[in-house]
Amino acid sequence: MEAEFLAWLRSRLPPHPRLTLGPGDDAALVRLGGASQSAGAECVVTVDMLSDGVDFELEGIDPRRAGRKCLAVNLSDIAAMAARPVAAVVGLLLPRPGALKLAQELYEGILPLAEQYDVAIAGGDTNTWEHPLAVSVTVFGEPPPRGSLLRSGAQVGDWILVTGALGGSLLGHHLDFEPRVREALLLVERYTLHAGIDVSDGLTLDLARLAAESGVGAALRLADIPIAPAADRLAKQLADGSTALDHALGDGEDFELLFTAPPDEARRMVTDQPLAAPFGAPMTAIGEVIAEPGLWQIAADGARRPLEPRGYLHGSRP
Amino acid sequence: MEAEFLAWLRSRLPPHPRLTLGPGDDAALVRLGGASQSAGAECVVTVDMLSDGVDFELEGIDPRRAGRKCLAVNLSDIAAMAARPVAAVVGLLLPRPGALKLAQELYEGILPLAEQYDVAIAGGDTNTWEHPLAVSVTVFGEPPPRGSLLRSGAQVGDWILVTGALGGSLLGHHLDFEPRVREALLLVERYTLHAGIDVSDGLTLDLARLAAESGVGAALRLADIPIAPAADRLAKQLADGSTALDHALGDGEDFELLFTAPPDEARRMVTDQPLAAPFGAPMTAIGEVIAEPGLWQIAADGARRPLEPRGYLHGSRP
Repeated sequence: MEAEFLAWLRSRLPPHPRLTLGPGDDAALVRLGGASQSAGAECVVTVDMLSDGVDFELEGIDPRRAGRKCLAVNLSDIAAMAARPVAAVVGLLLPRPGALKLAQELYEGILPLAEQYDVAIAGGDTNTWEHPLAVSVTVFGEPPPRGSLLRSGAQVGDWILVTGALGGSLLGHHLDFEPRVREALLLVERYTLHAGIDVSDGLTLDLARLAAESGVGAALRLADIPIAPAADRLAKQLADGSTALDHALGDGEDFELLFTAPPDEARRMVTDQPLAAPFGAPMTAIGEVIAEPGLWQIAADGARRPLEPRGYLHGSRP
Repeated sequence: MEAEFLAWLRSRLPPHPRLTLGPGDDAALVRLGGASQSAGAECVVTVDMLSDGVDFELEGIDPRRAGRKCLAVNLSDIAAMAARPVAAVVGLLLPRPGALKLAQELYEGILPLAEQYDVAIAGGDTNTWEHPLAVSVTVFGEPPPRGSLLRSGAQVGDWILVTGALGGSLLGHHLDFEPRVREALLLVERYTLHAGIDVSDGLTLDLARLAAESGVGAALRLADIPIAPAADRLAKQLADGSTALDHALGDGEDFELLFTAPPDEARRMVTDQPLAAPFGAPMTAIGEVIAEPGLWQIAADGARRPLEPRGYLHGSRP
């Protein structure tokens, strides 16, 4: 439903002098303190609405992990723009019995992560009701000096790169992942990147979105996809015929950075591996941006075949 | 629960160089674009989390009114700071059957109000689940040139004033009220105000909060409280012994401005009635800020008796 709704919403939104970038990317860009480019500040803003039973199952986990995730997914959106998070506000809708205790536990997951990334908790709204937990976190931040990294900047010939390894996040990574905030800041400081997104709904689905926003196509070398050990484990656990590669291609919530860069820069990044030492996050080149729209796979012999985007579509989960 | 939780949260939040004003007022203040006072911009930010069955009953109303309210309550918080709203982000958690239609209807209530107040809809997050509608709206804006109006600024001797008339909002006003954004901007431009809050949880409860944040007391002349016709109607409908005055004192969701000003300025405002012509909103002086903490009522003979704050306590509704 989300894609259809987003298209409808974008058609309804009038342009606004303060809105540098509207809905449809990982975050929006708003100019505050005056509409002129010279005054004030550009603000990167993103919101995520998470809930019990959809984004986590409170019954089986420490609520602190759920609270942490609610902030972390937003930090990942800010990272996808290569921006620096500054502050967050939190809305809680708590199931009534035990609401106070749950609110405190959620914050005990939120606060350490906020401190780790120097994010101010600026405020919140806390309510109770008779239904499961819903949490809204809005994070705002500052774009990097060279400008935010958008989904729409990919250029034909760019290499496609991804941090870390993918798949099987359901086994725990989706709660405990480290948002790639510092990694993104380091990358845009040292290299020229063209486009970026975080892998939240699945590698192929998110890559297809990036390509569509850029008006280009994307071709993946499946043999080069970095597969997380959890993807292997999940495939074995499920024993439903799915492979580890399937999970790397389609599982959501890896929260790795997926980005494109001109070949020279990309080559330099892959050689330098600037994230390896401080962050333990390898970068892998997994494909190329091509002119022909859509998502493609490249076989070992160079032949190109269509690749169906797979991933988590919001609102379509059975 | 909210007051207890807020006290807990405030004790846990470390100071942050970017956070000029943390949780506890109608909105928070965050400095963006650099920590120095000279660079960047100060951002006023507020979030509200509304839900079906708590803040409105979707079954009985046009969803557009619910959508409008979700933005309007936030605009009221921005107005309480005498700030100018600039942009909003919206998080939706939609009950699954008919989710797309509901999302569109909600936005058809949000968008006209956003346009009316020149607020950019910067983005959102839209999800579905098996439970009732929950909506989170975060609004950010810019403080007025002379600085935001805080709850904590009231001074002994100030007059206490309120816009419009109070009580009975349950009969419809709570959905269709006009946030006092323009009124607040006009007031801070022309007059010196000391403290402000919006009447969201009940006149006496919100006034008690303002007084507590300012470290002062507040004394109300009950005979001077402007009572809305709806307060009369509600008292008659309920026929539970409550009076129209009771509703004016304790009903939530009037979303009028409640503020304090030095006597000279207050006298000038009451005489000028600067909001009458453009907005049809009278201003009424209803009491005084006093040194003795707590909430008080002043009888016709000047005698002062304690007044119990009444209103809507989040999380305590049966």
